[in-house]
Amino acid sequence: MSEADIGLIGLAVMGQNLVLNMNDNGFTVAVFNRTISKVDDFMEGPAKGTNVIDAHSLQELIQKLKRPRRLMLMVKAGEAVDEFINMAIPYLDEGDIIIDGGNSLFTDTERRCKDLRKKGIFFIGAGISGGEEGARHGPSIMPGGDPEAWPHVKDIFQSISAKVDGEPCCDWVGNGGAGHYVKMVHNGIEYGDMQLIGESYQLLKNVLHYTPEEMQKTFLEWNQGDLDSYLIEITSHIFGVKDTDGSLLLDKILDVAGQKGTGKWTVINALDLGMPLTLISEAVFARCLSAIKEERVSASKILKGPKIEFTGDRKLFAHAIRQALYSSKIISYAQGFMLMRQAAKDYQWSLNYGAIALMWRGGCIIRSQFLGKIKEAFSADRDLKSLLLDPYFVQQIQERENGWRQVVAKSAEMGIPIPCMSTALSFFDGYRTSELPANLLQAQRDYFGAHTYERVDKPRGQFFHTNWTGTGGNVSSGSYNA
Amino acid sequence: MSEADIGLIGLAVMGQNLVLNMNDNGFTVAVFNRTISKVDDFMEGPAKGTNVIDAHSLQELIQKLKRPRRLMLMVKAGEAVDEFINMAIPYLDEGDIIIDGGNSLFTDTERRCKDLRKKGIFFIGAGISGGEEGARHGPSIMPGGDPEAWPHVKDIFQSISAKVDGEPCCDWVGNGGAGHYVKMVHNGIEYGDMQLIGESYQLLKNVLHYTPEEMQKTFLEWNQGDLDSYLIEITSHIFGVKDTDGSLLLDKILDVAGQKGTGKWTVINALDLGMPLTLISEAVFARCLSAIKEERVSASKILKGPKIEFTGDRKLFAHAIRQALYSSKIISYAQGFMLMRQAAKDYQWSLNYGAIALMWRGGCIIRSQFLGKIKEAFSADRDLKSLLLDPYFVQQIQERENGWRQVVAKSAEMGIPIPCMSTALSFFDGYRTSELPANLLQAQRDYFGAHTYERVDKPRGQFFHTNWTGTGGNVSSGSYNA
Repeated sequence: MSEADIGLIGLAVMGQNLVLNMNDNGFTVAVFNRTISKVDDFMEGPAKGTNVIDAHSLQELIQKLKRPRRLMLMVKAGEAVDEFINMAIPYLDEGDIIIDGGNSLFTDTERRCKDLRKKGIFFIGAGISGGEEGARHGPSIMPGGDPEAWPHVKDIFQSISAKVDGEPCCDWVGNGGAGHYVKMVHNGIEYGDMQLIGESYQLLKNVLHYTPEEMQKTFLEWNQGDLDSYLIEITSHIFGVKDTDGSLLLDKILDVAGQKGTGKWTVINALDLGMPLTLISEAVFARCLSAIKEERVSASKILKGPKIEFTGDRKLFAHAIRQALYSSKIISYAQGFMLMRQAAKDYQWSLNYGAIALMWRGGCIIRSQFLGKIKEAFSADRDLKSLLLDPYFVQQIQERENGWRQVVAKSAEMGIPIPCMSTALSFFDGYRTSELPANLLQAQRDYFGAHTYERVDKPRGQFFHTNWTGTGGNVSSGSYNA
Repeated sequence: MSEADIGLIGLAVMGQNLVLNMNDNGFTVAVFNRTISKVDDFMEGPAKGTNVIDAHSLQELIQKLKRPRRLMLMVKAGEAVDEFINMAIPYLDEGDIIIDGGNSLFTDTERRCKDLRKKGIFFIGAGISGGEEGARHGPSIMPGGDPEAWPHVKDIFQSISAKVDGEPCCDWVGNGGAGHYVKMVHNGIEYGDMQLIGESYQLLKNVLHYTPEEMQKTFLEWNQGDLDSYLIEITSHIFGVKDTDGSLLLDKILDVAGQKGTGKWTVINALDLGMPLTLISEAVFARCLSAIKEERVSASKILKGPKIEFTGDRKLFAHAIRQALYSSKIISYAQGFMLMRQAAKDYQWSLNYGAIALMWRGGCIIRSQFLGKIKEAFSADRDLKSLLLDPYFVQQIQERENGWRQVVAKSAEMGIPIPCMSTALSFFDGYRTSELPANLLQAQRDYFGAHTYERVDKPRGQFFHTNWTGTGGNVSSGSYNA
């Protein structure tokens, strides 16, 4: 009876494809799904002729597993995960392992890890990226949780994961929620990458009036150079897909995007940790703005902008767009790694940034050559404080700076919204500014709220209050935070 | 014994000044503070010769109150509020009222309101803005909570609040946490206003090399026109305040600003509600960036930008900065009111946007003539969807659009970070764009994750999936959210 290497619950597209991937790699997988008919459909469909074993109850599934039992959940993040954990516990023994392969919030994973540990059950929260294709043929897997469980799942996970130069895009990330945290940041970066491609598309379309064929050619070309990446690649494909009537399918798709998940969490976490994650934030808000389509349509009839008439060199401007995209991408990743560095500090994780770059290098949605360069940067200096201080990226960004500035400036003049490319440039210029106007802000806060300030000529941590008006008290704000 | 109209706990600067303000308005206030010596200091200092009554224990304080007892907390938001509530409950009777005048998170206020209601005690969460001066001479007060309590505190609150054209800057906001919510958005807007002034300062300083005297003159001038506001006014004063050595005090203040409070909460709430609150978000992140001063100083030595050489007409550019500031301010408030509209929907509050504008019109940190115009816009159309669709603001922004675009474009070219003015323009251009590139984003999501999309030629709510690669399955992503 107990013949399966791993049991998987949840047969939506990701779950199905992971099962088939494991099967291809020689592992015996038992499967179960809450809606039982999906199990049968799967067995008679995609799993036909494989070694996959079906189960028609959770108990049956668990009985079919070798010990220590490895039970993997591929269900919707949130309550469903807790429900299945609670249902499974009575059938599990000490030393068994539950793996959550969904997009769970890392704090939930922290909690589950602690709770299950008390019961002697090991928990792993594994971020998995790669979409349908990745899950089927090799995803990026970011596992974290109870380190004692890792040796028991390492072989399966590293076997099914993507490989880059023979190295698996899967390694142990860290304790507790570290794996899901890194997956969350990955998804945030994915939001940023997608929005940056969208802005490039909008510029090529609205300023240079590129045809779908020119678009496809451009993205293909970009994909052969420094921007070589999965998202650029599929973008070039998208410009070749026709609707049933022969016109570009893309033109039929409504420009309304959802955001309710991990991108949002990443920004909230950045706010909590006080790290300036401006690009991903703008990408999330760009989706929010896309969602109020009707209001935009109304506004488009009322609020007029400048007439878009491009008179410069089209080829040069297209090249500048490429430079803006690449430079902004550097900023986005720099911000993402700054955030992870702060998280490691605050949550006491020991994160290996080079290993994270390698995990993202292949298999996942944001896979790219670029991540290989990031891996190199952290290999050269494990303690690198920021990608923007790494010699390679400094050179890359400074070579492209002029084109980037030109695109942001021209877009402002022409009325094309490119929030991510713009905020990236603002961040770049703010980051390299030793004196920001926050001194005025501190003066204002002390003026109206007695919030005190630090001085440039005194050690940090000494706070001063000035009675700016000459009237009013000398009482500092103390514990009341206005 | 029971002679006081209201009891106040917490004698930091805001608490002290509110007490003195109430006393001036003929109310008898009893006071208590956890550190008892502060009570004595206050009685022998600022409260000497007033009708303020001291109490040296919470019990004593409550005993000194008329019925229904009105007990106001001016303590640090968070646990301290719950602690004092729990300590007070045994001494309170049904129908008594607790008022929290701190910067509490609105969800805490919701919870406290419900919990106390069960005990027959009414709870009011009142946002108070105005800093030291406002608290002393007339703040803006935004009360919400249990509506049955409002008649019992209305007289005190409206008496001590600021007045504009005879109208008090205090009115009932709504049920539960509505008062603290509106105060939270007020604070978020305050973050935005301050950052916008900071960016104007940086432009005047780094591009036009204004002297402190020119700065002061400029802000004084701006304060006499459309930008007439408290924050512009105090900014002009700040440029006149000298350090002990006779140099500008502002130059001695460290450019490191904190952010841990209500600004952050506003952005998190916007993310939760899916509303694009980009300007306040950038203002919060600008504070985060200011905080990593050492890293900025390092980066300033490595990352070079363009040389800032301004060759245009200085007077015209200064005027353009003013236009950029005003236009960006319209965007910030438009976003803030959009957020409140969504909150009213999601939390089932009936918010009166004109009344909110009036509450902010005087007394508080963001008080301005501009808020009078917002009041007018909502008076003209109670259901106004966005300030950017109001005829007055449409005209105002379109008159200033060219200067605004010029400032954003020039800053990008010259390497001056103005994240809020830039994001405001991006938002403006995105808001008035009927077709954003989110169609590409939806295509990508459907390509790699079978997330489905809507079509421009089909009714909303119908979702389609395309097998983009020709390989892979036709299973849509279902309940698994990648």
